[in-house]
Amino acid sequence: METLSEFQLIRQYFSALGASRADVALGVGDDAALVDVGSGKLLAVCTDMLNGGVHFPADAPAAAVGHKALAVNLSDLAAMGAQPSWVLLALSLPSADAKWLDEFTAGFQALAQQAGVALIGGDTTRGPCSVTVTVLGQVVPEQVLRRSGAQVGDRVYVSGSLGDAAAGLELWLAGQRSGSAAVEALLSRLHYPSPRLALGAALGGLASAAIDVSDGLVADLGHILEQSGVGARVELERLPLSAPLRAQVDPAQALHLALAGGDDYELCFTVPAEQEGAMLQTAKQAAVDVTAIGVIEAEPGLRILNSAGQPVILQQTGYQHFVAKPS
Amino acid sequence: METLSEFQLIRQYFSALGASRADVALGVGDDAALVDVGSGKLLAVCTDMLNGGVHFPADAPAAAVGHKALAVNLSDLAAMGAQPSWVLLALSLPSADAKWLDEFTAGFQALAQQAGVALIGGDTTRGPCSVTVTVLGQVVPEQVLRRSGAQVGDRVYVSGSLGDAAAGLELWLAGQRSGSAAVEALLSRLHYPSPRLALGAALGGLASAAIDVSDGLVADLGHILEQSGVGARVELERLPLSAPLRAQVDPAQALHLALAGGDDYELCFTVPAEQEGAMLQTAKQAAVDVTAIGVIEAEPGLRILNSAGQPVILQQTGYQHFVAKPS
Repeated sequence: METLSEFQLIRQYFSALGASRADVALGVGDDAALVDVGSGKLLAVCTDMLNGGVHFPADAPAAAVGHKALAVNLSDLAAMGAQPSWVLLALSLPSADAKWLDEFTAGFQALAQQAGVALIGGDTTRGPCSVTVTVLGQVVPEQVLRRSGAQVGDRVYVSGSLGDAAAGLELWLAGQRSGSAAVEALLSRLHYPSPRLALGAALGGLASAAIDVSDGLVADLGHILEQSGVGARVELERLPLSAPLRAQVDPAQALHLALAGGDDYELCFTVPAEQEGAMLQTAKQAAVDVTAIGVIEAEPGLRILNSAGQPVILQQTGYQHFVAKPS
Repeated sequence: METLSEFQLIRQYFSALGASRADVALGVGDDAALVDVGSGKLLAVCTDMLNGGVHFPADAPAAAVGHKALAVNLSDLAAMGAQPSWVLLALSLPSADAKWLDEFTAGFQALAQQAGVALIGGDTTRGPCSVTVTVLGQVVPEQVLRRSGAQVGDRVYVSGSLGDAAAGLELWLAGQRSGSAAVEALLSRLHYPSPRLALGAALGGLASAAIDVSDGLVADLGHILEQSGVGARVELERLPLSAPLRAQVDPAQALHLALAGGDDYELCFTVPAEQEGAMLQTAKQAAVDVTAIGVIEAEPGLRILNSAGQPVILQQTGYQHFVAKPS
């Protein structure tokens, strides 16, 4: 079967469709698009489609589906430095199951309230379980974070910890629905990711590039490197691993999940040396842990070094879709 | 099986989700939402999800799917009096079929160029064939058309002709892929609807209410009546029937399709008597035929009268989804 990755598809078919408009400040290819609505702020817009059995397990809690469908889009806005305002929801369901809808709605609603976004439109239809959310936000031009601004010498940072959601997915697919505090923490990271909105907004003017970690650190940092025309060195032992992850899986597997596991929705960003102090203070005010994991270099590509300074080779550079992978 | 119609679902679960925001000028429940971005214009936003085998035949031409997924959203903006600016596309496909994607893209692209909208974002994923398009447009507050403004005494108008797309669907489902000029005209109305953007923009300040005819005249005019708190009388013999429709189906069936058939994407609107002359001139300038079909009355409900002035009763008041109807 002929296959193209999701990214190849987007690039090949959808990167320059439609009319050319001067008010499009940033089109397809970053975490969100930016358009100039003439208000002094840019409108940031993104959309993500989540299919049952592909982007979330078919038996995922409905509340988790509602939360996550919104969270992944808010995470895209966070990676642009934008503040979310409004959301649209297109939902396809095999049947109008009131209990599922109640729980889905509760999960969506709790995060929407917390993020201050209003639902302004939607569509519901009968079909395979699928949720498409479109989020609109706003950002002043000076605060925009792009993927393309990383410069040689910038430090590479990530927020929070990596690999937790991928470990949670392994637990879920193995049938684990509850367990130790560590198990439940990892399942929670899988089902209820926290978009880093406050951090994203605070990084404007400080970070030189940013992306959210949805497909795994290697894949997503790879987008920054590619779009910035640079490379990077990342030190394996600096990767932030949570206590639940270290409690639950062996060290080698934890590092593999931190590099290649998707769905963490942390921010990966680059910071010029002269902004590092201000950035660290800002992250502290936002109450988000950030960790320096490497440095931007001129040589293209990503080099991952172990504690002996030797390059390691990943067998898999990122998750496409966890269940129905291209084959 | 418990079932709820699409509209009940939306109303019940999604009408007031998320934070309450003062900048939402019009939320869920009209053809598009309106938000105040602080530019003097309102941002109009709508989203529609089209599933293969539900909203379009599974064997519909890919170019038609691309055209129609955009057209139905542009039609929603037309019904608000808004001008489209930007579009996002979320596409789910069972496989990355290059030929299908080429044709889909060509259909989407031609209409996007014509309407002056730029594609600014998207998502592609593996799954059942499904297309969700989100369109963003702009409208000055004085030009907004809502569903809720119809007043007793206003004339009820529709643009173009009704029933063609439903007749085209019957032909398509019966296996007809080409034929007489009439057959091909009806198939074209099904696959390549023309959103009434110029007319919608021209009706601002003249029409008291508007909606696009996507689910059938009875269902869609019903939304105007309900949201305006009024009723209406419509005269059967005034319904605009195209020559291809009259050539292809018998008179009774033509009227039934004009009343209950979906997918025409004409505008249905109401006009105060004192604006009727200006509206007719404006429609002429936009080169769109408009037809007076009835009048708004105080008594709630829709009364459809035959040529003898007798009320007729419809067996089916509108299409939900043409293939997989709630059962």
